[in-house]
Amino acid sequence: MVLLSGGLDSATCLALARADGFDPACLLVQYGQRHAVELERARVVARAQGVSEVRVVTVDLRAIGGSALTADVPVPKDRPAGERSEGIPVTYVPARNTVFLALALGLAETLGATDVYIGVNAVDYSGYPDCRPEFIRAFEVLANLATRAGVEGARFHIHAPLSGMTKVEIIRTGMRLGVDYALTHSCYDPDGEGRACGRCDSCLIRREGFRAAGVPDPTVYAR
Amino acid sequence: MVLLSGGLDSATCLALARADGFDPACLLVQYGQRHAVELERARVVARAQGVSEVRVVTVDLRAIGGSALTADVPVPKDRPAGERSEGIPVTYVPARNTVFLALALGLAETLGATDVYIGVNAVDYSGYPDCRPEFIRAFEVLANLATRAGVEGARFHIHAPLSGMTKVEIIRTGMRLGVDYALTHSCYDPDGEGRACGRCDSCLIRREGFRAAGVPDPTVYAR
Repeated sequence: MVLLSGGLDSATCLALARADGFDPACLLVQYGQRHAVELERARVVARAQGVSEVRVVTVDLRAIGGSALTADVPVPKDRPAGERSEGIPVTYVPARNTVFLALALGLAETLGATDVYIGVNAVDYSGYPDCRPEFIRAFEVLANLATRAGVEGARFHIHAPLSGMTKVEIIRTGMRLGVDYALTHSCYDPDGEGRACGRCDSCLIRREGFRAAGVPDPTVYAR
Repeated sequence: MVLLSGGLDSATCLALARADGFDPACLLVQYGQRHAVELERARVVARAQGVSEVRVVTVDLRAIGGSALTADVPVPKDRPAGERSEGIPVTYVPARNTVFLALALGLAETLGATDVYIGVNAVDYSGYPDCRPEFIRAFEVLANLATRAGVEGARFHIHAPLSGMTKVEIIRTGMRLGVDYALTHSCYDPDGEGRACGRCDSCLIRREGFRAAGVPDPTVYAR
């Protein structure tokens, strides 16, 4: 079971799950993102990697609010790396990865899967608390207590294979595994045609990642 | 922050949160239940207990499936107590309480609350793994790792005050605190007019609870 967002990280995570020998199902979460591009790209990425089972679960995180990704709070632009790495950004969605992993766990249990992959990343993690390895470990403990499968002796494993990787390492890993990054989407604030803004934290980290990896960035930026 | 379902247990849990000195907000989760009665009753219960902040979050657990409460699986009827207590029932919804607590955590963080109440009950728990005290404790650990508030020094507490209580003790506690159980709803499979079936596990546990507590059962059963 792979959580897939349509971004660079989760596309790489999916490729790593396949490299680990799994034939993964993908969970796409429609959580009230400000734009629909993400979900479209996730479907395209899943198809490109030969995934046959794609499920979409809708959860209205807008009803929770508290984030620039789900509420009417402006997405910060053009922030230098130093400023971006300070504290927890306004794009943090309260308890988002907890909700995502809970949904992935439920679906894994229904489908009979025990391995759940999430493309979180603690090095370039932009200060999200629910991307840290200790969060992932705590969720794994919870998963084995929370489920019928866990009670009946199955062992859930939560994989966060990008956890210790820099963006450069993620991109190089994906290139080696044949990930087509032109299909992926990282921008927090795309324009009407779905083009990346090139200026939000996510675009800046992506651009710098391709540059540092020495790999041509296939993204079409609005500027 | 109190998770409220409109049932007997969560109505008592809300009264206990108020008795603990909180002025709670309530979270109602619309998760694709087979009937809408639950949510209506939850609103009525919240109003009766003077709750001013009621939030509804929609999450489509039907897309996950795997349960008689969200899929087209028949709800078992007329099972004797011995049979009911065996194993994990078909009304188990995969990872439901994990999803509910994750949503409550997100909303708590947005509203600045650190205390989350859930009316789970391990004695009459019908074999749900995500009602056990060890599950609640694991979620509390997770909550403090998952959130901005946790990173910034807040301490989340997950309260499950009914955890060690029998149905009789819950009913007596609620009566003492003035809970109007006529407003609550426990049935897994109500009829077209919202009347309890009187025959599913939840109805049977409720009926036996009132009888054993020596309290008149205010529920209108279809039979």
